[in-house]
Amino acid sequence: MRIYLAGPEVFLADVEALAAAKRALCAEHGLTGVFPLDPPPRTLDGAPDADWPDWLRISQANEAHIRSCDALIANLTPFRGPSADVGTVYELGFMRALGRPVFGYTQVARRFGARTLAHLGPAARRRADGAWEDAEGMAVEEFDRHDNLMLEGGIVASGGCLVVEEVEPGRRWHDLAGFARCVAAAARLLGARG
Amino acid sequence: MRIYLAGPEVFLADVEALAAAKRALCAEHGLTGVFPLDPPPRTLDGAPDADWPDWLRISQANEAHIRSCDALIANLTPFRGPSADVGTVYELGFMRALGRPVFGYTQVARRFGARTLAHLGPAARRRADGAWEDAEGMAVEEFDRHDNLMLEGGIVASGGCLVVEEVEPGRRWHDLAGFARCVAAAARLLGARG
Repeated sequence: MRIYLAGPEVFLADVEALAAAKRALCAEHGLTGVFPLDPPPRTLDGAPDADWPDWLRISQANEAHIRSCDALIANLTPFRGPSADVGTVYELGFMRALGRPVFGYTQVARRFGARTLAHLGPAARRRADGAWEDAEGMAVEEFDRHDNLMLEGGIVASGGCLVVEEVEPGRRWHDLAGFARCVAAAARLLGARG
Repeated sequence: MRIYLAGPEVFLADVEALAAAKRALCAEHGLTGVFPLDPPPRTLDGAPDADWPDWLRISQANEAHIRSCDALIANLTPFRGPSADVGTVYELGFMRALGRPVFGYTQVARRFGARTLAHLGPAARRRADGAWEDAEGMAVEEFDRHDNLMLEGGIVASGGCLVVEEVEPGRRWHDLAGFARCVAAAARLLGARG
C-alpha cells in the first residue's frame, strides 16, 4: 500500500534525510511512503507540461502522487502561526475528497483555541456573549480541537485518526515520535480494511 | 449552477449580512451561491449523525455542501499569518480533487515570499545559497505567487483563476471588490463550459 507523506518538511535543507527516515518507518509497517519530492508517477492526470513554470509542475506532480496513493499522513504541526501549513492542508482535503483514509499528527499538544489566543496576544477581545474575537472581529474557533474543524472532521470521517505528540519545540521538524505513532496507527487501520 | 463560497467570513459576527451580499452577487450572474452555514443538503455522503459533536457535524455538512456544488470560490486573503485560512484551503483542495473548477481571490496584493519575510522579521536568515529560511531552518517559499504553490496550482489546473484585489486593510473582510471580480470571472468561465 502506498501512503502519501504530506508536511512542511519539504522546506528543510536536510529534507532528504528526513524523507528517508519516514520511508524507513513506513517500510517497517509494510507501507510504501511516497514523499512530495519523489519523481512524479507515470500515471499522471494530465502529464506535466515541460513548458509549465516550476510552481505549477510541482503542484501537479504532488496531485498526481496523491492520486497514486491509497492513504495520506499529514504533518499538522503548527507552521508560522496557529494553524498547519496550507500546502499540507490542501493535500489533506484533496485526498479526503478521493474517499481514501487520511491520518494526521501534530507535535504541539496545546489546542487550537489557546494557540490562537496566544498568537493574538492583547489584540484578542471579548464579544458580548463572552466569545473571543480578534481585532478584525473574526471569532476564535473553540471546539477543543487541534486546528480548524475541517481538518480533524475529514480525518475522523475518513476512518483515520489524529495523533498528538508533544515534542521539544526545537525538535518539532526533526523528531519522528508523532509520525512513528501515526504510521503505526495507519498500518493497523489500513490492515483492518484489507 | 451551484457555487460553494469558501472563506473565513464564517468567523464574523455579521456573517449573515455578508453571506446575503455574496449570494446576491452570485445571483446577478445566474449562479446559486452556497454558503457554509446554509442548511446542509439532503444528498449527504453519509447523513450527519445527531450524536456527532458540533465540530464533526459542521465539517461533514460542509463536505456535503461542496459535493453538491459545481464549482468553488475561495477567499484566500491571508488570515492570522502569511497564508490563507486552513479551513478554506482544505475545501479548495477537496473540490479540486472532485475535478470541478475552483476559483480564488485575495484582497492583499503583496506576494507570499514578501509577506512571509515580513511575518518572520529579524528571525529570517540567509542560507549559503542565498535563499531565505526561518529560525527553524524552514525555507521561505518564493515562486512569486500569492500563497503556497499548491493553492494557485490547483486553481490554474482546474481551469479557474485567482483574482488579486488590494483592499484597505480595515475593510478586508467586508469589501466585496475581489469577490465581485472573481464571481464575474467564474460565471464567464463556467458559461464557456456549459
